Amino acid sequence: MLSQYYAPTKVVFGRGAEDEVSNQLRQFGADSVLLVYGGHSALKSGLLAKVRDNLSAAGIRFMELGGVQPNPRISLARKGIEICRENGIGFILAVGGGSVIDTAKAIGYGLFNGGDPWDFYCGRRTPEGSAPVGVILTMAAAGSEMSDSSVLTNEEGGLKRGCNSDHCRVKFALLDPELTISVPDYQTSCATVDIMMHTLERYFHAGKGLSFTDSLSFTLVRQAIENGRILHADPTDYDARANMMWASSLSHNGLMALGNPSKGDWACHQLEHELSGMFDIAHGAGLAIVFPAWADYVCDTDPSRFAQLGKAVFDLECDDVEKAARMTIDALRSFFEELGMPTTLRQAGIELDEAHLSELLDKATFNGRRTLGNFRVLERADMEAIYRRCM
Amino acid sequence: MLSQYYAPTKVVFGRGAEDEVSNQLRQFGADSVLLVYGGHSALKSGLLAKVRDNLSAAGIRFMELGGVQPNPRISLARKGIEICRENGIGFILAVGGGSVIDTAKAIGYGLFNGGDPWDFYCGRRTPEGSAPVGVILTMAAAGSEMSDSSVLTNEEGGLKRGCNSDHCRVKFALLDPELTISVPDYQTSCATVDIMMHTLERYFHAGKGLSFTDSLSFTLVRQAIENGRILHADPTDYDARANMMWASSLSHNGLMALGNPSKGDWACHQLEHELSGMFDIAHGAGLAIVFPAWADYVCDTDPSRFAQLGKAVFDLECDDVEKAARMTIDALRSFFEELGMPTTLRQAGIELDEAHLSELLDKATFNGRRTLGNFRVLERADMEAIYRRCM
Repeated sequence: MLSQYYAPTKVVFGRGAEDEVSNQLRQFGADSVLLVYGGHSALKSGLLAKVRDNLSAAGIRFMELGGVQPNPRISLARKGIEICRENGIGFILAVGGGSVIDTAKAIGYGLFNGGDPWDFYCGRRTPEGSAPVGVILTMAAAGSEMSDSSVLTNEEGGLKRGCNSDHCRVKFALLDPELTISVPDYQTSCATVDIMMHTLERYFHAGKGLSFTDSLSFTLVRQAIENGRILHADPTDYDARANMMWASSLSHNGLMALGNPSKGDWACHQLEHELSGMFDIAHGAGLAIVFPAWADYVCDTDPSRFAQLGKAVFDLECDDVEKAARMTIDALRSFFEELGMPTTLRQAGIELDEAHLSELLDKATFNGRRTLGNFRVLERADMEAIYRRCM
Repeated sequence: MLSQYYAPTKVVFGRGAEDEVSNQLRQFGADSVLLVYGGHSALKSGLLAKVRDNLSAAGIRFMELGGVQPNPRISLARKGIEICRENGIGFILAVGGGSVIDTAKAIGYGLFNGGDPWDFYCGRRTPEGSAPVGVILTMAAAGSEMSDSSVLTNEEGGLKRGCNSDHCRVKFALLDPELTISVPDYQTSCATVDIMMHTLERYFHAGKGLSFTDSLSFTLVRQAIENGRILHADPTDYDARANMMWASSLSHNGLMALGNPSKGDWACHQLEHELSGMFDIAHGAGLAIVFPAWADYVCDTDPSRFAQLGKAVFDLECDDVEKAARMTIDALRSFFEELGMPTTLRQAGIELDEAHLSELLDKATFNGRRTLGNFRVLERADMEAIYRRCM
């Protein structure tokens, strides 16, 4: 079976990379842009003012769309599309992290394809292209700056859905690690989990993979752990921020699934999307809860896969493969706790009652129309067991 | 200082990837192509016949240019440009390894920019674009399928010169490990050295790098060694061929220089280019001779860099950094010898006399107009000392 690797985003990296913005926009033929951002941090840091000055000095016309929230809303993307249409704007410039980039991608889809952009997220339509998107990254976590993915939330029904397509690959991403130094400890920890999970989701997959790809995955997870630990102690460490920024981009750009047609398991992400769609918790925290529960539940499917991971990432030595697998899961759970992440819903302040659970399962299964994962295919009853372990 | 990572090549990987050729050509808008290849192996294996059938069935018009040799000649590229011009062909399809791809890239440059393509290799002009190139890879070694590089030889003067530019990044590369199973042992060993060297050239560089990038480099070199060893024992091992194919493409696509503005040292490659330009030895064999000599000579510049490499790649444990550095160089030299590579010129059947040496140094220094490398900057006297160690 064939697999594909395609990560065409041009990355400019280093201190002051954001100053390249107009140069890059010109290279990609943009003479007017929609500047999309969140709020507080980009404003407070002076980054937005700097970007505005850079664009103005280069004579690039721009309109603005601020106020992107975590778990970004489709309604704001709709508003962005309207602004672009009314003002003849064809290029979207995202200044922020995953939520801002994903909003920009949804705008890009809507602008190119017409109609309601939610169609692409609920699976009603497949995008046939996208208006071009560029990025100035202020948070290393989601990896959206190089991925084919975006995740939006529809307030009507609290649905959180992803759309994957190469059309939304970002044209250029400006990566300055200094811009991420002000990210608070809790969000940095959430980011570390998310970065690890983008690799782990791919590491656990159906079929036989390549040892080359496994080696890359171990390296990436080790780096995320080492640098996550450094940043939990000292969030201002530039080198650790720089390492983490690359870990973020490469964990989710496809590199960790080389030669792997299934592209990974992804059940944890999907189970988590329902949780954060319903409770609006941080994605990384949700993953820190879901992954250990999932791992405990599916471990018997192939304990050697967990054991190999533990050996390569935590230097665990144990001849009993099943024991080694359990030790690996414990080591990952302990690391999440070391970072201050919740590993149960209760720790995150969420009391999951039976009505919630039933609604989560309806959503996760698309009302019984889908299973999740492929390392182990999860039916509704499996998902229920995993959610119960999350409590 | 800023660095850039840009590897936009779309890779389709797996058994039968070559059957995708017409689909990919269509996706990139090609309706007529110049099919470029070497000779023997692609003909004998039936691959060329298969490609011709695939193109014909899809109604894609094509002309052919066979006969590309190792250390490919600029004269053949000139001929390819002529064929394209006369027949209104705008897309070059390379079926082969590095020499074939590099010939296709030179044709692409000439076609887009006009004039003599050698101008781009001798530094007289900088390419402003390239006609698009696609690849069906039959040998994992040069990494040209994802790199920004191509190296051509001018028969007049025996000059071997490279041209680096993002314009020549291949549009699509079809990677089927099965196509490389027939590559003979000696060439596979040469390939292993070349693949390792594309990472080592970047690992040794001026300034401080990122530990993230170092980790990736160690992983890649370890994988090249492990799989090189497997293939030396059994060239038909599909998994090892698959791992090596990815190692080849990623070693030279820029990934091993993330956050590294200098892009690496490259003195070994340049010293080797003069050798193989003069003596027509295999590039990988030349590198197996030059690298240990270079490493012995420059080791004192930063022994810890060598020691780290040895620890990560060969699990060498030694508290004395200088001793550890020497052990690392010895381990690399021994590995090259284990693969059947020469590590001196004499072993390769070359007696380097003083006249040769003087000519090599004139060429390597552009008649005194350049130094080489940046891990340690090499003057003519340094180059001479290294060439003498190669004897």
